[in-house]
Amino acid sequence: MMSLENKFSALGTENAPGQEIRSATVLTKPPLSIKGLDGEPVDFSHGNVDAFTPTPGALEAFLAGFETGGAQAYTEYRGTANIRAQLAGRLAAFTGAAVDADHGMILTPGTQGALFLTMGATISSGDKVAIVQPDYFANRKIVAFLGGESVPVRLDYMRAKVGAGLDLDGLSTAFEAGAKVLVLSNPNNPAGVVYSKAEIDQIAALSNRYGVTVIIDQLYSRLRYSGTDYTHLRAADLSDDSVITIMGPSKTESLSGFRVGVAFGSRKIIDRMEKLQAVVSLRAGGYSQSVLRTWFDEPNGWLDARIQAHQAIRDDLLAIVRQAGMQVRTPEAGSYIFPELPDLSVSAPEFVNLLRTQAGVTVTPGTEFSPHSAGSIRLNFSQKPAAAAAAVRRLAIMVQRHQA
Amino acid sequence: MMSLENKFSALGTENAPGQEIRSATVLTKPPLSIKGLDGEPVDFSHGNVDAFTPTPGALEAFLAGFETGGAQAYTEYRGTANIRAQLAGRLAAFTGAAVDADHGMILTPGTQGALFLTMGATISSGDKVAIVQPDYFANRKIVAFLGGESVPVRLDYMRAKVGAGLDLDGLSTAFEAGAKVLVLSNPNNPAGVVYSKAEIDQIAALSNRYGVTVIIDQLYSRLRYSGTDYTHLRAADLSDDSVITIMGPSKTESLSGFRVGVAFGSRKIIDRMEKLQAVVSLRAGGYSQSVLRTWFDEPNGWLDARIQAHQAIRDDLLAIVRQAGMQVRTPEAGSYIFPELPDLSVSAPEFVNLLRTQAGVTVTPGTEFSPHSAGSIRLNFSQKPAAAAAAVRRLAIMVQRHQA
Repeated sequence: MMSLENKFSALGTENAPGQEIRSATVLTKPPLSIKGLDGEPVDFSHGNVDAFTPTPGALEAFLAGFETGGAQAYTEYRGTANIRAQLAGRLAAFTGAAVDADHGMILTPGTQGALFLTMGATISSGDKVAIVQPDYFANRKIVAFLGGESVPVRLDYMRAKVGAGLDLDGLSTAFEAGAKVLVLSNPNNPAGVVYSKAEIDQIAALSNRYGVTVIIDQLYSRLRYSGTDYTHLRAADLSDDSVITIMGPSKTESLSGFRVGVAFGSRKIIDRMEKLQAVVSLRAGGYSQSVLRTWFDEPNGWLDARIQAHQAIRDDLLAIVRQAGMQVRTPEAGSYIFPELPDLSVSAPEFVNLLRTQAGVTVTPGTEFSPHSAGSIRLNFSQKPAAAAAAVRRLAIMVQRHQA
Repeated sequence: MMSLENKFSALGTENAPGQEIRSATVLTKPPLSIKGLDGEPVDFSHGNVDAFTPTPGALEAFLAGFETGGAQAYTEYRGTANIRAQLAGRLAAFTGAAVDADHGMILTPGTQGALFLTMGATISSGDKVAIVQPDYFANRKIVAFLGGESVPVRLDYMRAKVGAGLDLDGLSTAFEAGAKVLVLSNPNNPAGVVYSKAEIDQIAALSNRYGVTVIIDQLYSRLRYSGTDYTHLRAADLSDDSVITIMGPSKTESLSGFRVGVAFGSRKIIDRMEKLQAVVSLRAGGYSQSVLRTWFDEPNGWLDARIQAHQAIRDDLLAIVRQAGMQVRTPEAGSYIFPELPDLSVSAPEFVNLLRTQAGVTVTPGTEFSPHSAGSIRLNFSQKPAAAAAAVRRLAIMVQRHQA
């Protein structure tokens, strides 16, 4: 059995996005004032909600929830019934498969809350869990906390010509080895790639064959760039009771500060999630639940405009990154780029620290997403366009300065 | 090892406060329209925040947080540094021992979130955990989810002349048997009794002797009635690193709809809690954290007025309950009464259901708090005074009607 000491060392947050302020890494070289490295600091560890502001009407919806009073402060643990009813139709239309508002949906404290509850409801001590590498850093940490065993499946996003590049043979091997749960994000975080219809169909077929439950985090599935086809796993040929889809308005819609998300699918799992939520945090913040009334009901043109603004930043940053000689795949959705650094004369963690302290550029090291991604860094480009471009030019200077 | 199926059956929420709407209990007698049972329905399963409204300034503080934008949406996982700094001094003054804002405090999604994180940071599969019976229902459920083993210690609140009535020999036996963690609430939920200084000193001495970590939920410790002495465990003779105190503004201050709480004490445990919070829900809702700026800084006289209003309701309800022949101990703090029902001709769960469907009176069955409390019911009397008194008179009629 894993001791608590070991368990919590697997949950390290020293390099997690947003925790840089608590970083205690010692620099071998002191911060310098170097020509070309001045400029507005940019924190690429998360999106800038001052650049892309919360959706219109969200605050007003919160205030209406507050005015409702007790009924909105103390909701069922799974969230207000009529908010679930409103969302069910919209999510069914978006994902292409029916959503059961009463029994097949739960409102959670952010998509992070949904992910923890779903995994807590399906993974027990000693269970094998298939996780993708690279993928969202919390996946393997939650497996560790629950006492499960991660079975990694490779995502060769850089070489894939079509789709995300999932190693389907590896997935089959993981299921063969006994993994009964698969956790993945689509679009992938950090690489921003989208699974093809063929990949989704294969995942569904393998999951059916081995009786696997699939937990799919579609947090970024609304922010899709032109030319991207997107296949919803839950609409594929898969039993209703074997998939949970997780979404939320924290990213595209910039509502992270309200901490609300949603999980929908398998009634059995949702039922367990509600029991777990009852002891983990009782419910998603009551008044905050109300902002979900605005979700998928934004003003005409709002989503298109947000996508176009992000696509323009994406293209600018990719050009600078590539000009500097770094490899990067073009993300098809979401707001992350995940470039590969060239060989450097300093270690990757040290470079990330120098970048932050000398050039005012905060990024998330690739090791958060896979032990094999030490040479990559993740940038969330939901930022002010000019400041982001200037910061990536500083990154290019730093790469050049420290190239091996 | 406990299967997921068993684990989640231990997490049942069918009788949990606020979940009555999902109750599927079949009644042997259909609802009737009975003389004397009409009246405004009262839900005693939680406080009525429309009767006792959120503290003045809380909503304005939330709005200021929203206006702050990104810095308040994306805080450190342990919560905004300057809010922690503000609270540390106030909590130190209240509890009588220093609070380390930077390393010894974390903001959480409600006190429920704090409780789950503290227990998750200290309890692992197979660990023995001393819990009090009766006590807050989530304690033993969280132990079950974490794969631990609850070792109950009796609280004889009804017979105790002084203090809460903890069985100190039983506590010693539990520690002797290997329990390394003790979880308790003070004032006790559901009984509303407060531990005496002698009891707190004994708990501290035994915990020191056996190297036990104490998790103490002081959610209701501000709402104390006249004549009540309160001893903060953290100010007793106990190592700094062996106690975590949990509080929050959800009850006395009626801020439950914002979902914020705080845990403070042991740096080592707080550090683990932050790691766990990173994967459970990232952080307490960013904008909601701002309402904590108003906590312990309410307008002059506000707390006294709130206490007096609750004390008046308490005394009214106790008189009705006792007149109807039920035993009840006078709560010294908080807003719960926990009367014992006489022997009835129907089962306790059935009585609770009849009470709700025939008399419009929702209460929480005693079995949520202890397997030995089937004959008791909990009422949260933070309600409109006249409606609450009328509802308890209906309870008295129902008791008389179904007496064995």
